Amino acid sequence: MRLMATTLLMWACAAGALAADPAAMTAVAPGIWRVTLGTPESAVPTSLREFEPRGDGLSALPAAEAAPITAGDIRFKATPRGSVISLPMEKGEDIFGFGLQLTGSAKQTGMKRTIRVNSDPRMATGDSHAPVPFYVSTRGYGVYVDTARYATFYAGTHEAPRHPGQPGPTGKNMLIEVPAAQGVDLYVFAGPSLQQAVQRYVLFSGGGCMPPLWGMGVLYRAKGDSTAEEVLALAREFRARRIPCDAIGLEPGWHTHAYSCSYAWNKKHFPDPDGFIAALTALGYRVNLWEHVFVHPSAPIHEALLPYAGDRGVWGGLVPDLTVPEARAIFAGYHDSALVAKGIDAFKLDECDNSDYNGTPWSFPEHTAFPSGKDGEQMHSLIGVQYQRTLYDIFRHRNQRTMGQVRSSQALAAPYPFALYSDLYDHREYVRGVVTAGFGGLLWSPEVSDAASVEDLIRRIQTVAFSPYACVDAWYIKNPPWKQIETEKNNRGEFLPEWEQVEARCRNVLEARMRLVPYLYAAFMIGYRNEGLPPFRGLMADYPGDPAAFVYDEYMMGDALLVAPLFAREASRKIYLPKGTWFDFWTREKIAGGQSIEVPASRETIPVYVKEGCILPLAEPADHITPETIFKITAVAFGKNCAPRVLFEDDGETFDAEKGRFNRVTLQYTAENGPKMERQGDFPAVRYEISGWEHVE
Amino acid sequence: MRLMATTLLMWACAAGALAADPAAMTAVAPGIWRVTLGTPESAVPTSLREFEPRGDGLSALPAAEAAPITAGDIRFKATPRGSVISLPMEKGEDIFGFGLQLTGSAKQTGMKRTIRVNSDPRMATGDSHAPVPFYVSTRGYGVYVDTARYATFYAGTHEAPRHPGQPGPTGKNMLIEVPAAQGVDLYVFAGPSLQQAVQRYVLFSGGGCMPPLWGMGVLYRAKGDSTAEEVLALAREFRARRIPCDAIGLEPGWHTHAYSCSYAWNKKHFPDPDGFIAALTALGYRVNLWEHVFVHPSAPIHEALLPYAGDRGVWGGLVPDLTVPEARAIFAGYHDSALVAKGIDAFKLDECDNSDYNGTPWSFPEHTAFPSGKDGEQMHSLIGVQYQRTLYDIFRHRNQRTMGQVRSSQALAAPYPFALYSDLYDHREYVRGVVTAGFGGLLWSPEVSDAASVEDLIRRIQTVAFSPYACVDAWYIKNPPWKQIETEKNNRGEFLPEWEQVEARCRNVLEARMRLVPYLYAAFMIGYRNEGLPPFRGLMADYPGDPAAFVYDEYMMGDALLVAPLFAREASRKIYLPKGTWFDFWTREKIAGGQSIEVPASRETIPVYVKEGCILPLAEPADHITPETIFKITAVAFGKNCAPRVLFEDDGETFDAEKGRFNRVTLQYTAENGPKMERQGDFPAVRYEISGWEHVE
Repeated sequence: MRLMATTLLMWACAAGALAADPAAMTAVAPGIWRVTLGTPESAVPTSLREFEPRGDGLSALPAAEAAPITAGDIRFKATPRGSVISLPMEKGEDIFGFGLQLTGSAKQTGMKRTIRVNSDPRMATGDSHAPVPFYVSTRGYGVYVDTARYATFYAGTHEAPRHPGQPGPTGKNMLIEVPAAQGVDLYVFAGPSLQQAVQRYVLFSGGGCMPPLWGMGVLYRAKGDSTAEEVLALAREFRARRIPCDAIGLEPGWHTHAYSCSYAWNKKHFPDPDGFIAALTALGYRVNLWEHVFVHPSAPIHEALLPYAGDRGVWGGLVPDLTVPEARAIFAGYHDSALVAKGIDAFKLDECDNSDYNGTPWSFPEHTAFPSGKDGEQMHSLIGVQYQRTLYDIFRHRNQRTMGQVRSSQALAAPYPFALYSDLYDHREYVRGVVTAGFGGLLWSPEVSDAASVEDLIRRIQTVAFSPYACVDAWYIKNPPWKQIETEKNNRGEFLPEWEQVEARCRNVLEARMRLVPYLYAAFMIGYRNEGLPPFRGLMADYPGDPAAFVYDEYMMGDALLVAPLFAREASRKIYLPKGTWFDFWTREKIAGGQSIEVPASRETIPVYVKEGCILPLAEPADHITPETIFKITAVAFGKNCAPRVLFEDDGETFDAEKGRFNRVTLQYTAENGPKMERQGDFPAVRYEISGWEHVE
Repeated sequence: MRLMATTLLMWACAAGALAADPAAMTAVAPGIWRVTLGTPESAVPTSLREFEPRGDGLSALPAAEAAPITAGDIRFKATPRGSVISLPMEKGEDIFGFGLQLTGSAKQTGMKRTIRVNSDPRMATGDSHAPVPFYVSTRGYGVYVDTARYATFYAGTHEAPRHPGQPGPTGKNMLIEVPAAQGVDLYVFAGPSLQQAVQRYVLFSGGGCMPPLWGMGVLYRAKGDSTAEEVLALAREFRARRIPCDAIGLEPGWHTHAYSCSYAWNKKHFPDPDGFIAALTALGYRVNLWEHVFVHPSAPIHEALLPYAGDRGVWGGLVPDLTVPEARAIFAGYHDSALVAKGIDAFKLDECDNSDYNGTPWSFPEHTAFPSGKDGEQMHSLIGVQYQRTLYDIFRHRNQRTMGQVRSSQALAAPYPFALYSDLYDHREYVRGVVTAGFGGLLWSPEVSDAASVEDLIRRIQTVAFSPYACVDAWYIKNPPWKQIETEKNNRGEFLPEWEQVEARCRNVLEARMRLVPYLYAAFMIGYRNEGLPPFRGLMADYPGDPAAFVYDEYMMGDALLVAPLFAREASRKIYLPKGTWFDFWTREKIAGGQSIEVPASRETIPVYVKEGCILPLAEPADHITPETIFKITAVAFGKNCAPRVLFEDDGETFDAEKGRFNRVTLQYTAENGPKMERQGDFPAVRYEISGWEHVE
């Protein structure tokens, strides 16, 4: 039989666990402390960090005098299995985090989570494409465990051990197991709010990424075996039919050998890669290439990488040890000269997670040995971020921004402009991914491919449009899903009778995305990059004191918008609106917060609500963004006492903004003085023009 | 995107892995070799073994001159993560095993399996109530890894590493990771067949268990909160309505405190335990008590067990270290005097697995420290078997046989008369459990509780009747499921209009079980106990050379019967009959083997087929078995050249058979001489009488 209600009592003292030495605690940045417990391993995420903590952003947060957890509160022991750490938790305290978590509760309190890299995270075990050993508490602090191990977190499942004769925690606590390691560094992040603890973690990671302006637009991935002609036909069709699209992605078929990868153009399908890229570029597209990290013997870099490869291969290819600078240099060097120099703008980094749950496991075993001394477990945790780093650095060195995709990530990844994705394709899980990824400084792209019904397509593409990276991933269908949702018919060219109507509905949705580009770009370039504020995040991040906001199917997009996607085959959905006043984004209807509302599925638009007191800049929708694009903006002021809205104006293409070549464009609205727009900064061109104002009350 | 077809190539040498020293290989029993690699841990299953290998049974198997795997074929290295072992596999070789596996393929080839103890093994990851680090190969050998760690097996997912300059394996291989351990003992079992390798493993474990004769009958578990009166009313109803039932089980409500357990009678519901037991006994029932291993502070043994408990509790109770003899003595001593001495015949040992996948994890963490020095991971692997041992030893010392249930088991468990069960309740998975458990010398009970429809009830109870332990587990319904399948109505006493007809159908099914008791008892007492032959096993065990027999939804029950359960809501099912001739058990229809047949769901009976050349003894069905029961048998000879059928005749209650107090009753049939029955042995009473013969051709 089964008993669900549980109480776990600690009745005896924990054998051998000792309080950490207070001297082991060091302040490393404003509001951030490191505690060294035992002898940490050398192969940890911080040992590979490319970015320094963003001191400026950290200093701008409220000063924290004392660490929210003191060394004396922490218990540690090393065992043959690894390290065991215990941290206090208080009654009523709730925990969020551990990176992208597609399944189960976003609230981690009372759960056991093993943060194992996994391509098929179908159960709420902690398995994830992008597990992160970082969590935050509603008590307003965060903890990062600097490990590349599959650590297990028991988040308040157990009461704390009694330490006879010692002062110490007595309630439930956070128990952490780090396999193999005989010690670990913990980093403790002050708040005072949960949100600010997340911000400190993102800033500690180096701040949020800096995507190009075109990265705010739409990515369309063509069918895996498309020819150059087919892709170009699609690209022309989008322009002709005004489908918003900034980037076109090629799937495996562009390689001469894809599993493992040759990274060389398949000349049968792409006889003239340069001409093909030029043609797409002329149409205003950016080109994104699929690949993975497993290097086929026919790849031009195979031989050079042999000395830097693990002792187990994957799909007949080698696994480069991208934690070694020489290996990164070989990998990046080739990509730079053969692909980026020829006009490739971005990459999709597939299959860099692990494959435990697959019918046919394919990735390297956890015991694989790598030249740097790391084992397969460590490499599974690290390879996603190091792969992003390798490709990102190419663009960085060219002073060119990129926006890519990646299927695995882990700690300290916020500065890399890559969005996570999955193959699991459950719409509710995909929405949950938006909520959970934010706690780990990650971007999650709930891409749409096919759909079970037209309703399903519309609902999914709505989520896509209101997500970190708007991607239509048509890797197995020849024609856009709005022409035909059924795969086989789509590939035979049999279209829905009403396809033009479906296309129009999808176009409307994607145009809504394009209207929000200036708003979203500021959320990235100011909020995320400088302040460490994830542009997409669960409501609990903004409202940690409100347990009703601990919902997993709605989220904040920037500071002003609450997004609550509808799901096909559900007659209606409940939406919680936190305390305050909200406005329907589409109808401008005013709704009181602090309550749940029921929204029927008969509604065409995705439920999006604007927080009172916000100015929302809405652009005329472009179908793509160029270096010359000027956004014509209608600024809408919602309610009274609207806070100024600051937009970020720069070239959107290079890193020159880091050298001060940007403007802060401030929109203000007061009842007395009406609208106002101010521009401060050294960027010479104008990207934003106000074409109108609206005041909603 | 996803690619399912996989080839994994080893392109370089495995760093640091060395061939095992041939001197490390020791013959430990006929056809069994031990290879010591590195420095094994001390807390391993063999260190806790209660039973010696069955030398007599091992000697009776075909002699094996040489080990099927030599030390030179084995690669080993120790790393900070633990031990890594590589064993050769040949092209086309298939692997089965790893204990009870409810999900995924029974064939383990190409899979990665981590044999982690888990109460909710919903995915094909190796998680199991009863994972066993033992596997067998279609090449006719077995390998047991003597570990209590959650070992990972990569069963031919990867090609073998090249060892430059060394001879060694070159194809795919078996890669094994044993966490934390810096060495491990492997045991290699000769065949020559897969079946014989399983037999050697079971005999190495101490041989199959010796259930009492009444353990062949039906167990009915009453609702958890039943009173003595309610249970007795049910017990009388079964006798009045001739429902076969040998044992009645009480669920948590018999304790004064159940989560954790007090092991003390709740006098409110059971005011007179002795009288209650006496009344059940007078009706011919055996009494089975539910419990788990977590000891509540109010339990009479709590204080005595405090020095022998782990440093983390569960449900407010302590976790006794049952690997320590003193702890077993305290636990068993109380159970003996307070319960077994008072007439309790058996126990159901619940919750002794682990709870990773639950919404609210409850069991002790893997880092728990136990007085014997074991950690929580080791204890999770060991506690199920040590719990069985503790309770079994009570009965053993009383010279009284028992038949219990347990929710966790691991290596070397075959001698313990406990059947595994689960709460997952998927009918197809439950059938798969019968198939997979056999490879680990385990018994699996696919118990029935409620049902989605009458059809579902009938199909499930059919599987129950043709399984190792026939259990109706009505722990949450007041009345038998055949009276009402819907839980709430059942508990309100609202019965199906046609309940008497449903009851009659269920009675028929359970009576079929009772007809097979003499046949099944011999499969246990001769085949399993002496020869190590699991009484229930996948077809692949009997037909390892026939890949068409690698099916997961049919199984052998003894040597003569092939069982292929039907599933509700499936219009028909395909049944593979291996080469040879088969007879429908119910209609006697003759069917050619070597083909798959389609059986429609319109059929009332469970598809069961008898192998040509077998004599099947069918008893008059008793509704329960007593020490005086005499089985009146009709012996049915199927086809020509029938092999003799040997039945086992003893008191069915004590271990006196071990001292020779048993008979072998041989039934023979030849066309020339007709039927014959012979009795050999020292048991004075007659349990089997031939009431008729039938010859089917």
